[in-house]
Amino acid sequence: MKTVPSQEPSKPTLSEVSERAGVGRSSAARVLGGYGSVSAYTRDRVLAAAAELGYETNELARSMSTGVTKTIGVIVADLANPYFAGVLRGVSDTTRAAGYGTIVISTDEDQKREDEAVRLLTAKRVDGIIVAPAGGRQADASALRSAIERGTPLVQIDRTVDGLDADAVVLDNRDAAREATDYLLAAGHRRIALAWGPAVPTEQASVADLALAARTTEITSVGERYLGYADAFADAGVAVDPLLVMTGEQTAEGVRDFLAGVLGTDGATAVIATEQDAVIASLGEARARGLRIPQDLSIVSFDDSPWAEVHEPAITTVRQPLRALGENAANLLLARIAGEAPGPTVTHLSSEFVDRASVRRVKRGGR
Amino acid sequence: MKTVPSQEPSKPTLSEVSERAGVGRSSAARVLGGYGSVSAYTRDRVLAAAAELGYETNELARSMSTGVTKTIGVIVADLANPYFAGVLRGVSDTTRAAGYGTIVISTDEDQKREDEAVRLLTAKRVDGIIVAPAGGRQADASALRSAIERGTPLVQIDRTVDGLDADAVVLDNRDAAREATDYLLAAGHRRIALAWGPAVPTEQASVADLALAARTTEITSVGERYLGYADAFADAGVAVDPLLVMTGEQTAEGVRDFLAGVLGTDGATAVIATEQDAVIASLGEARARGLRIPQDLSIVSFDDSPWAEVHEPAITTVRQPLRALGENAANLLLARIAGEAPGPTVTHLSSEFVDRASVRRVKRGGR
Repeated sequence: MKTVPSQEPSKPTLSEVSERAGVGRSSAARVLGGYGSVSAYTRDRVLAAAAELGYETNELARSMSTGVTKTIGVIVADLANPYFAGVLRGVSDTTRAAGYGTIVISTDEDQKREDEAVRLLTAKRVDGIIVAPAGGRQADASALRSAIERGTPLVQIDRTVDGLDADAVVLDNRDAAREATDYLLAAGHRRIALAWGPAVPTEQASVADLALAARTTEITSVGERYLGYADAFADAGVAVDPLLVMTGEQTAEGVRDFLAGVLGTDGATAVIATEQDAVIASLGEARARGLRIPQDLSIVSFDDSPWAEVHEPAITTVRQPLRALGENAANLLLARIAGEAPGPTVTHLSSEFVDRASVRRVKRGGR
Repeated sequence: MKTVPSQEPSKPTLSEVSERAGVGRSSAARVLGGYGSVSAYTRDRVLAAAAELGYETNELARSMSTGVTKTIGVIVADLANPYFAGVLRGVSDTTRAAGYGTIVISTDEDQKREDEAVRLLTAKRVDGIIVAPAGGRQADASALRSAIERGTPLVQIDRTVDGLDADAVVLDNRDAAREATDYLLAAGHRRIALAWGPAVPTEQASVADLALAARTTEITSVGERYLGYADAFADAGVAVDPLLVMTGEQTAEGVRDFLAGVLGTDGATAVIATEQDAVIASLGEARARGLRIPQDLSIVSFDDSPWAEVHEPAITTVRQPLRALGENAANLLLARIAGEAPGPTVTHLSSEFVDRASVRRVKRGGR
């Protein structure tokens, strides 16, 4: 075991470093503070002396003078969601390669916590922020806007807020949902439940209510998925039954309540589960009702997970390029920090349909 | 939609705030800087004036004068592991209730990244750090030690480094593994594989090699689990077969390579999978070999997950109190930050055995 002195020697000062390096105090300050310019010779001598003496720069003081902290902040909606874990891996691998530290804050899908997170990160003087906004499209984004106006570059991931003047990297959720729905329609299903859809406060939402919520109030990814679902029905010349679209509380419990209805009297033969929580709740509700997958209920999930492949049956899924999403967002942010990049851009990444064993082919005309 | 001015007005100064509040500049500075004392009347007037003018304190500057940042840092080994997501939830709920922001850094089980994370967090002047050390028991903990010696309170979670003078909150991994092994032995199993066990660099590890690695070089949680497994065998008067303990690379691929051996010639009838990756790899390898669970292979997992309950069959598991672990660690850290708490303490939390359907009862004598 390594022996470490229990008493640390008193901290070396800048003057001691400059003395040992044999250079002026101001040169040493420039090297250790990371500002101004010095010769390579001076730089090497100062760094060697600092290392020998165990000198540590006070990054707080340095940040105040240079305005650069070599740190980016990431605000995610839910750290317990494997979706964001995948995205974070892509972000941190990219930023780390560029010499940046990454700090993460989770908002648990709460707008107020997001505002706090933005304030904390700007107070810590991060060089840029990547955020998955927790509110809907029309959320009060004043904290995000304020950060941008104060010069902190910002990139949105997964969702966007209307009118926010910032880059965004999102998945093509509309296309992904259309593909999943097409697949089920082609397999002969007509009664296809969507869990979850846009939250609508009325008891019985109409198709018009759903479309309006999807385009205005909803978290963009959720709204886009409903629109893709509706696209596929329109293409197939089949009417959307709004009873089959979940409009209530977007939680595992909400999914089970919703399915309790649609698997009974509403006669759903398939469900598209767009979140991990929705997938697991759907499998749980099917089991509780003695429904076998896929014989009695077909399922297509979003957000592939390692367990989905070893599930019995293996779950057919729309796999999203989570790591690529994180990498793209990080690269955009780094370009902004470097002063590059033109006006705000929105990057769409495509998903991949993974055909496994959780969908049954039904005879046309049957249900 | 809320209208926000596209041009922000110039930032208000401290003097403007004190003028509007009708108090002296130094009183305003004390209120906004969070140091010294002022009357409730002055405090209210200053905060109201600051809110009206949109004044924002420069937290960086305030931190330098007060030394308090109301932020704690958490360093986890792997953000993609649901284990740490559960722990983080417990930490952030607790720290948030106490008015602290929480920032998280993932090390991906890499000692060098952990050192960087400690440096980054101390440079950001967090008030305390919670860390799941990435190295083994005898890791070079000089970065952690240095943080403690500079006055940053530190609490270890999940694992500990030998000789580090810091609080720790850990799960009783030895007891949990003993309980899982007891259960399988009582069900009649004798050929019980452990994935994973301590990493041992030799080709064929002996029981003595395993015990030594578990007590010295290994990450404490992994080491303790092996010791609990061995305890149960000793209690049952059955010898541990070191061939059934995985000593290689601690990854999903490592698990599959290991199982390819022990499910064939070594005749394992059960596996204890101590990590999410190991559980999923075990289920995958069983499926690839056409082994049914539990008829052909029994499995007990650690770290309960939502999907384990809806798996077919539902997975018998050792559920760990992840949120409680996070809460305990956060409370210890907050007490240290407040200057309370005596010498370093180690808190052990117990797991809960959840009996589901992935273990087969075998006839004694048979296998």
